[in-house]
Amino acid sequence: MPSGRREQVEDGQTVMDAARKVGVEIESLCGGRQSCHKCRVIVEEGHFDKHAISSSSKHLSSPTNNEITLLKKLGTPEQRLSCDAQIHGDLLITIPESSQAKKQIIRKKVTNRDVVIDPVIKQYYVTVRDAQLGVHRGDWGRLQDALETQWDLVDLSIDIHALRKLQAALRTENWSVTAIVWNNREVIDVQPGHKDSMYGLAVDVGSTTVAGYLCDLQSGNILATEALMNPQVSYGEDLMSRISFVINRADGLHLMNTAIIDSINELANRTAKLARIHPRRIHDIVLVGNTTMTHIFLGINPREIGGAPFALANRDAIDIKARDLGLRLNPGAYAHVLPSQAGHVGADNVAVLVAEQPQCLDSIILTVDIGTNAEIVLTSSKWMFSASSPTGPAFEGGQITSGMRAAPGAIERVRIDPKTKLPRFRVIGESCWSDQWQHRDNECADTKPSHLASGICGSGIIEAVAELFLAGILFPDGKFNPDIDCNAMYWDQEKRKGAYILATEDQSFSGNPILITQQDIRNIQLAKAALYAGAKLLMMRAKVEHLDQVILAGAFGSYIDPKHAMVLGLIPDCKIENVHAVGNAAGDGARIALLNRQKRAHAQDIAEQISYIETALDPDFQTEFVSAMHLPHQYDSFHNLGGILENSAVVTKVPRRTRRRRRTANN
Amino acid sequence: MPSGRREQVEDGQTVMDAARKVGVEIESLCGGRQSCHKCRVIVEEGHFDKHAISSSSKHLSSPTNNEITLLKKLGTPEQRLSCDAQIHGDLLITIPESSQAKKQIIRKKVTNRDVVIDPVIKQYYVTVRDAQLGVHRGDWGRLQDALETQWDLVDLSIDIHALRKLQAALRTENWSVTAIVWNNREVIDVQPGHKDSMYGLAVDVGSTTVAGYLCDLQSGNILATEALMNPQVSYGEDLMSRISFVINRADGLHLMNTAIIDSINELANRTAKLARIHPRRIHDIVLVGNTTMTHIFLGINPREIGGAPFALANRDAIDIKARDLGLRLNPGAYAHVLPSQAGHVGADNVAVLVAEQPQCLDSIILTVDIGTNAEIVLTSSKWMFSASSPTGPAFEGGQITSGMRAAPGAIERVRIDPKTKLPRFRVIGESCWSDQWQHRDNECADTKPSHLASGICGSGIIEAVAELFLAGILFPDGKFNPDIDCNAMYWDQEKRKGAYILATEDQSFSGNPILITQQDIRNIQLAKAALYAGAKLLMMRAKVEHLDQVILAGAFGSYIDPKHAMVLGLIPDCKIENVHAVGNAAGDGARIALLNRQKRAHAQDIAEQISYIETALDPDFQTEFVSAMHLPHQYDSFHNLGGILENSAVVTKVPRRTRRRRRTANN
Repeated sequence: MPSGRREQVEDGQTVMDAARKVGVEIESLCGGRQSCHKCRVIVEEGHFDKHAISSSSKHLSSPTNNEITLLKKLGTPEQRLSCDAQIHGDLLITIPESSQAKKQIIRKKVTNRDVVIDPVIKQYYVTVRDAQLGVHRGDWGRLQDALETQWDLVDLSIDIHALRKLQAALRTENWSVTAIVWNNREVIDVQPGHKDSMYGLAVDVGSTTVAGYLCDLQSGNILATEALMNPQVSYGEDLMSRISFVINRADGLHLMNTAIIDSINELANRTAKLARIHPRRIHDIVLVGNTTMTHIFLGINPREIGGAPFALANRDAIDIKARDLGLRLNPGAYAHVLPSQAGHVGADNVAVLVAEQPQCLDSIILTVDIGTNAEIVLTSSKWMFSASSPTGPAFEGGQITSGMRAAPGAIERVRIDPKTKLPRFRVIGESCWSDQWQHRDNECADTKPSHLASGICGSGIIEAVAELFLAGILFPDGKFNPDIDCNAMYWDQEKRKGAYILATEDQSFSGNPILITQQDIRNIQLAKAALYAGAKLLMMRAKVEHLDQVILAGAFGSYIDPKHAMVLGLIPDCKIENVHAVGNAAGDGARIALLNRQKRAHAQDIAEQISYIETALDPDFQTEFVSAMHLPHQYDSFHNLGGILENSAVVTKVPRRTRRRRRTANN
Repeated sequence: MPSGRREQVEDGQTVMDAARKVGVEIESLCGGRQSCHKCRVIVEEGHFDKHAISSSSKHLSSPTNNEITLLKKLGTPEQRLSCDAQIHGDLLITIPESSQAKKQIIRKKVTNRDVVIDPVIKQYYVTVRDAQLGVHRGDWGRLQDALETQWDLVDLSIDIHALRKLQAALRTENWSVTAIVWNNREVIDVQPGHKDSMYGLAVDVGSTTVAGYLCDLQSGNILATEALMNPQVSYGEDLMSRISFVINRADGLHLMNTAIIDSINELANRTAKLARIHPRRIHDIVLVGNTTMTHIFLGINPREIGGAPFALANRDAIDIKARDLGLRLNPGAYAHVLPSQAGHVGADNVAVLVAEQPQCLDSIILTVDIGTNAEIVLTSSKWMFSASSPTGPAFEGGQITSGMRAAPGAIERVRIDPKTKLPRFRVIGESCWSDQWQHRDNECADTKPSHLASGICGSGIIEAVAELFLAGILFPDGKFNPDIDCNAMYWDQEKRKGAYILATEDQSFSGNPILITQQDIRNIQLAKAALYAGAKLLMMRAKVEHLDQVILAGAFGSYIDPKHAMVLGLIPDCKIENVHAVGNAAGDGARIALLNRQKRAHAQDIAEQISYIETALDPDFQTEFVSAMHLPHQYDSFHNLGGILENSAVVTKVPRRTRRRRRTANN
């Protein structure tokens, strides 16, 4: 429940595995290692033996001591961890809303950029000499002759699937065919007569979202855009969980590989359907993703990326027959995977640089792509530095008490009145703020209460913590100010532990209030410190002290408010007007590489020339990290924020440094 | 019956298709077109409706008029054609021995030839720099560096399957690996540490027999030889039947392609088992076959070869990933298919020339490969001519009343006493001649009578007809001599139709005598005239009048007696001591191309340089064909046969031409 699905499963299978089997995704952060508590389920029936109610039941394995302790601590001793509980008999299992891995709202959009259309596949229309008695070259030889005579193409090979179609194609339209040639090297398809449509798919395999863009390779137009949740999420939320899953389970790689390949096929089918073409007419595909994703979709075990020295199986761009990856496009199609950089900084980040080209500008630009991992690139026209920062899943709602992904019902906008200290919020899928709900309910009283909050997503947490700080509820060290006393603040008896009530019982879907705890704030501090320290480390290595521009790439970067990000100290100082969100630049880069072959070479140059800095073991990173824990990390930020602080309750002294900086900014 | 298998089949399926489904092969020459009579079956039960015995039965479709006529003519009106009879209910079907497609005795042997061992795949042992923090090239980049530094290999690519194994392989033996490199271009496999064994498979896909040779690519030794019947036989005996099958049935190509691919996989498994290696250790495969076979195993529709202008999809050599053909060898392995010539003369004939190299000798050599089709090549050191002759299946036992393939129980040797006109024969699998059976039966009285004759195979027919002629039973025009009256001769009342009783009821397995009819002799005449006319046509085109040497390639060529072949006039005149049988030279050529990469280039040269003569529409061929119908086609033959005629009953006048020829031979 609530899906209502039934299935016979093997004795001893965990509830989580059984749920996967019936196509129900249970949330999991730890990848089934009994350490997160996201996968709790309620076993409502199954204790068929009336004489033995709980642990002596034969239908479900007994909880381990670890599980008992964890569930008691969470105040839900009647629930079970679905990754621990093993099935030994008939059961009715209810997955509470908090444990359901929801279909995410996909917010990636493609910005339109000018690209020279020069795809790696080209169509050549030729008239071939017909077969005659006494001329003994085969039909493929005759096609080669025609392509050489009419198009100067030499030394071509032919894909076996094209060869299988060749004879019928030649004879359908009186020996006129259109040959589709990859890289001026291989005939990958032949079609009878004159054809002038060609399609390609660009796919950005994110840890959470897989987005596909079906493009007309003649016009460069995007014909359809679709996105799916990465099904690997049910095997582990963050990259390390997935790497652990592969290491700990013999069939782990196979499961995750087939899951993602199925999704890419689904994207191809959906976009093709939207564009009213058959997926077999997709003749080219470009794939990007972080290094763990590229390893997994190529069927390569990512275990080496899981620990120092973080060796990639392959850094460079690679062309593989799409069919060899299990992709069901045109059978002759190649898949091109853009090159990676190193460690966790993969083809998606190279794609961001291909799309945004900060390295081509004569400015110092910080490009940040915050996904489940954060990739940071610092560029000028003379050098490129990159790093990966272990922000953890907090920015995506992980490790947060009421955290959830950006799905319907998630709080995404938060404002806190500096005077009353009371909050108002807005959830995804709703246009009304919580203080206007009364008005809304009157308008549409018969609708489901979809405006009620289920939890809080990444951009909501950023705003909430920033607003808490601006309202004076948090000290710069992240601690709740014990002097605050209002209806939204909850304190334990000795005022040692506090929590802020963002949504009340009445405003919450579950009927439980949505809280922001001290631990939540701590986790956000850790995440933002990691991001900030990574950026600072790159500035240190590049020997620069200021940024001309900040580019926020990725879905998360597009939906956080840059002002709140700066209040929180996510990124080093920069004029607020020079901070730009660019949406899914990785997807854009993939699409650009799909449309323009030179951009593929360009991507390879980037991968070879960029200086990758390994943060994991760098002592400077540790130092920066510790000093970046405060809110805000330094007071400079406020002075770039303009009017935002006017209504703020924070009392700050302006330190001397700022005056110098202000002059710099005016130069 | 007799297999005892049971199966539920779809309503309306033919008995032949149903038999295939249960894995029982029924003989068929015409490919299920109700024109041959090889597929007759006995429906022993199934007439469950006692009130309606025959045609009104609901369990089997009624015979068509065509079927009724054919079966009446054959004297077996109670039988059914399995390709016509459709199943509509429970049936017990008995397949008489004559309709069973037997497992053939495989008689192809590989002669040992000297070959320079220089395979297209090579092993390179390298020590790779280990992965270190701060060095960001991937493991594949590190392997590339090592292969370049240590072996001067540049611009390599890597197969995805090798890439998937790379990281584990590098870390198993302290960064030492053996890379298997194809054509100095692509790493197709990596193995930890130092490995020095490499295996390859050479496969000759004959219309009837598929033979495989597993070779050690280091030593060149043949580790195992296996052969299977080509399972396509059950879809049609000769090439045209199979092409028709593909044209007439939507899934025809798929059925025949998967059947042959399954067989090649089976060959790989069997030879690997014999050599005690895993089939995954086979890193290279060379395939040959006639053009219909290469088209089908490549998954290309052979319909264009079925009619003028007999256009091949591809004439040239081709390299394809073995996995793309469905072959389960090493996943990175390539399959190399040798080039074809034209029409029906395919890669197998090129392989014969690679193996025998008649074109490198300063003599005029006729190379004949008699299979289901006959390929004829005439060579000198200056030119090469080739042709295909439509001999039909008579030489393989097809279109012969008691004909069968070379299987146990087939008569393969025949002698007829010129005085008594009585025959003696020997069957395959037996050492005793029929006139010594008495003696044999005393020795092993408890054995099954496996010496009894089931039919007559190709070499048996050649000998029988030649012996009939030598005994004076046949006139030179192939007609039975009506003056002959002996126990072995059967005449109808008016002596207009005769038949020779080769085996009596007692000597026959079925209890019916084994006859050679006038029509059988006619069919042999047609076949031998086609072969002879083809050879003559090439001599005409090459403007030569004599042959220095004749090479008989193929299993059939190895088992016919050259003397009988000459009596019959299969091939133009040549000194009997210069006629050599070389066994399966096509298989040898495939093996040579497997072991030596230069031979592959050499094969391509042959395919490009040979002059292919299309016999089908050539008026000279027709003229030669008509004049070659007689037995023997010309009296010259006898003078090269030495002692064979001493006991002959044939009275011939030596025509004037012969004296001249004799002088020529003495020069």
